[in-house]
Amino acid sequence: MTDLLLTGVRVWSNGDAACDLAIADGRIAAIGPGLSTDAPEVFDGRGCLVIPGLVDAHAHVDKTLWGTPWHPHQAGPSVLDKIENERRVLKTLGLSPEVQSARLLRHMVARGTTHVRTHVDIGPDVGLAHFHGVQAMRDSHRDWIDVEIVAFPQTGVMIRPGTLELLEQAVREGAEAVGGIDPVGIDRDPKGQLDGLFAIAERHGCGIDIHLHDRGDMGAVTIDMIVERTRALGLAGKVAISHAFCLGMLEPARLDGLIEALLELDIAIMTHAPSGPTPFPPIRLLHDRGVRLFSGSDGVRDTWGPLNTGDMLERAFLLAYRSGFRDDPSIEIALRMATYGGAAIMGAEGYGLTVGSAADLVLVEAETAAEAVAFHPPRRLVVKRGRVVARDGRSLLPPAA
Amino acid sequence: MTDLLLTGVRVWSNGDAACDLAIADGRIAAIGPGLSTDAPEVFDGRGCLVIPGLVDAHAHVDKTLWGTPWHPHQAGPSVLDKIENERRVLKTLGLSPEVQSARLLRHMVARGTTHVRTHVDIGPDVGLAHFHGVQAMRDSHRDWIDVEIVAFPQTGVMIRPGTLELLEQAVREGAEAVGGIDPVGIDRDPKGQLDGLFAIAERHGCGIDIHLHDRGDMGAVTIDMIVERTRALGLAGKVAISHAFCLGMLEPARLDGLIEALLELDIAIMTHAPSGPTPFPPIRLLHDRGVRLFSGSDGVRDTWGPLNTGDMLERAFLLAYRSGFRDDPSIEIALRMATYGGAAIMGAEGYGLTVGSAADLVLVEAETAAEAVAFHPPRRLVVKRGRVVARDGRSLLPPAA
Ligand SMILES: [Zn+2]
Ligand SMILES: [Zn+2]
Repeated sequence: MTDLLLTGVRVWSNGDAACDLAIADGRIAAIGPGLSTDAPEVFDGRGCLVIPGLVDAHAHVDKTLWGTPWHPHQAGPSVLDKIENERRVLKTLGLSPEVQSARLLRHMVARGTTHVRTHVDIGPDVGLAHFHGVQAMRDSHRDWIDVEIVAFPQTGVMIRPGTLELLEQAVREGAEAVGGIDPVGIDRDPKGQLDGLFAIAERHGCGIDIHLHDRGDMGAVTIDMIVERTRALGLAGKVAISHAFCLGMLEPARLDGLIEALLELDIAIMTHAPSGPTPFPPIRLLHDRGVRLFSGSDGVRDTWGPLNTGDMLERAFLLAYRSGFRDDPSIEIALRMATYGGAAIMGAEGYGLTVGSAADLVLVEAETAAEAVAFHPPRRLVVKRGRVVARDGRSLLPPAA
Repeated sequence: MTDLLLTGVRVWSNGDAACDLAIADGRIAAIGPGLSTDAPEVFDGRGCLVIPGLVDAHAHVDKTLWGTPWHPHQAGPSVLDKIENERRVLKTLGLSPEVQSARLLRHMVARGTTHVRTHVDIGPDVGLAHFHGVQAMRDSHRDWIDVEIVAFPQTGVMIRPGTLELLEQAVREGAEAVGGIDPVGIDRDPKGQLDGLFAIAERHGCGIDIHLHDRGDMGAVTIDMIVERTRALGLAGKVAISHAFCLGMLEPARLDGLIEALLELDIAIMTHAPSGPTPFPPIRLLHDRGVRLFSGSDGVRDTWGPLNTGDMLERAFLLAYRSGFRDDPSIEIALRMATYGGAAIMGAEGYGLTVGSAADLVLVEAETAAEAVAFHPPRRLVVKRGRVVARDGRSLLPPAA
C-alpha cells in the first residue's frame, strides 16, 4: 500500500525520462512509469529531480546564534582568536544548546537536509552541557532528521586538563565519534592528543574525526601521525580528517604519499570549501584516486563567521565554485559529497535512491544533478522516512522555543 | 498622494529601527515612522531590510541558454577555447537574442535586479544581430528594468577585420559604451585595439569597458596602456576594466602604481569573484584606497560555465566569500558593489534610498545589510519605479516566448 506517490519526477543517475516514485512504510517501494495513483497523497513532480536527502556531515549546531539578533563578527584572524572570542560571546549570551540546535535543524530540514553529523563542544568550561542539550534535541527530533554526535574538544585537549575524560564520558553516553583539533597548532602536543583520542576510539569502538586547520608541513606531519595510529590500532575505515587545508598546499610527491596512506586505511576527508584564500583539498584529484570525501556546513551563523548558510545544495555549489568545476561529472562529485559521501561516514541505514532505500528524498526544480547544484533553487519537497517535512523551502517542523 | 506604502521596514544605512516608506509617482516620497496608511497598496514589511534595486553591471544576456534544455559544459580551459566552443554552440542552437535576453531578464527581476549593463556580442560572424535583439528587448521591457548596452567584440578586434566598424555602428545606434577584450592575449595588438576603441569613445563620447583576463605583467602593461590613453584623450571617469585578474597577482609596489593611476583617471574596476583558483582584484584594498568598484553576473547559464545564477545578492555573497570577508563593514562593500557601484557606472538617475530617489527597491528578510548578503534569501518584494515587479522570489513579468 503506497503512502505517498511522486509523479513525473527524474531520479538522479537513473536516466533522463520522468517517471513515478512510490513510497510505502518509509521506504522507496517502486520507481517506474505509470505507477498506480491511488495513494492517499500524490505529488505532481512536474519534471523535478529527485536526489537523496542532503547530508550535513560536519556541523556545529550546538552553538549557532540562529534566531537571535544579528551578531556582527568580531574575532581576530587566527583559529585561537576565534576560539577565545567564541568563549566570551557564548558566556555573555547564555543561550540554550538544546533550543539553538533545534532552531538551526528546523532551517536545515527546510533546505533538504535529512542527516546531520554535528561536532558538539566539550571541555572543562562547558562540561557536557552542550552534549546533553544536543542529545535532548536529537531525541525530540528523531522523526524529522537523523543526528549523529562527535564529541568535540573545541578549546584543545592536552592544554585543557580533564578534556580527555569528558570526551570519553560523552562517548560512553552515546557520542558516535570522538573529535580532535590541531594537535600541533592548538595543543603543541600531537603525541599526547592523538594517543589520547585513539585510545578512546580503541576502547569504545567509536569513530574519530579530527579538525585539522594546521597548514603545510605541520598539517602533513599530523596526517602521518594519524595514519600511523590508524594502522597500528586496526582502525581502518573509522577515521576522518576535517578541513585538512594542508592537502591543498603540498608538493605533488608529498601529497601522493599521503593519498596512498589515506587509501590504505580508508581515512575520509571533509572539506566545506573554506572562504577567502584558505587552501583546501583538491577534490577532483582525491575523488579520482578513490579517497572518501564528504562535506558539511561547518558553523552556521555563529561567532566564527557569518557566511555559512546551512544549505547543503548551496554547499555543493560552493565546492564546485571554489574548485573551478564546469563540467557535469565534476559538479556531480560535489553533490555526491553532500549526499552519499556524508551518508557513508554516518553509516546511514538504507541511504540511496533504489527500491528498498529509506525514503529520505529532496525534490529540486532541475533537469540534471549539475543543474541542481549550479542553480540550487528552493527545495520543492523534502521527505524524511516517507513523510513530507518541508515544502517550497518552508519547514513543516514547528518552530523551536 | 502615496501609491504604495511599505510599513515596518528597516532602511539600509538608516539605523536599526523599523519605519515606513511611502512611494508616489515612482519615487520615494517619505521615510519615517507612522506614515499615513491610506495608500491604495500597503505592504507589511515585517522588519525586512530595504536595499536599493540590485545592479548587474556586467552581464551577457544576449547569449544565455536560459529556458532551453540543460547544456553540459564542454569547452576547454582557455579563454580562446571558450570563445570557439561558444561560436559553435550558438550557431547550432540558432537561438533568438531577443527572446533569450528577455528570458534571463525576467529571472533577474525576480532576484531583485532593477538595472543591467550587458555586454552584447558584435563581430563579423553575428554582425549587429545580437545588438538589435537586445535593443528590441530593452524597448519592450523598459517598465520592468533599465538596460544599458556595451558593444562587445567577443571574438577579438584586430584579428577580426571589420569589428571596429561594427562597434562604432552600434555606438551610433545607441550602445552606451564600447567594449574590448584582452588586447594582448586575444589580438596580440594592444596598440591597434586600444587606439581603435579609444578613437570611437572620443568621437562619440561613449564609455569604454574592457574585458581583461590577461594575467600578471601582461595584464598590468595593458592597464598602463589604458591609463595612458584615458589621460591623453581626457576620458577620466569614462573607462572601466572588467575582471582585471592581474590586480590580484602583482607585487605590492607595481599594484600601488596602478592604483594611483586608476584613482587619477577615475577608472572603475569590475569583478564578479571568478570561480576556481583564478586570481581577482583585492576588493577591500581597492575600496579603501578609493577605487570605484562594481560587479555583475557575467554570463548566466551559457557556454562559458554553469555556475553563475544571475542573482546579484548571491553575487555579493560570493564577492565576500571569495575575499574572506567576515566583518560587517567588509561584507557591506560587496553589497555596495552590487548596488551603488554598478548604478554609478551606469549613471542611473536618482538611484538610492533617500527621499526623492527613484523607487527601485528590494525587500530582504534580514536585519542588516551584512545578514542580507550572508543569507541572500529569496526577495520578498521587488519594486521598479514604484511598481511591484516581483514578489516572494517570483517575477510578475509575463514569461517570454
Ligand atoms: Zn568544524
Ligand atoms: Zn564578461
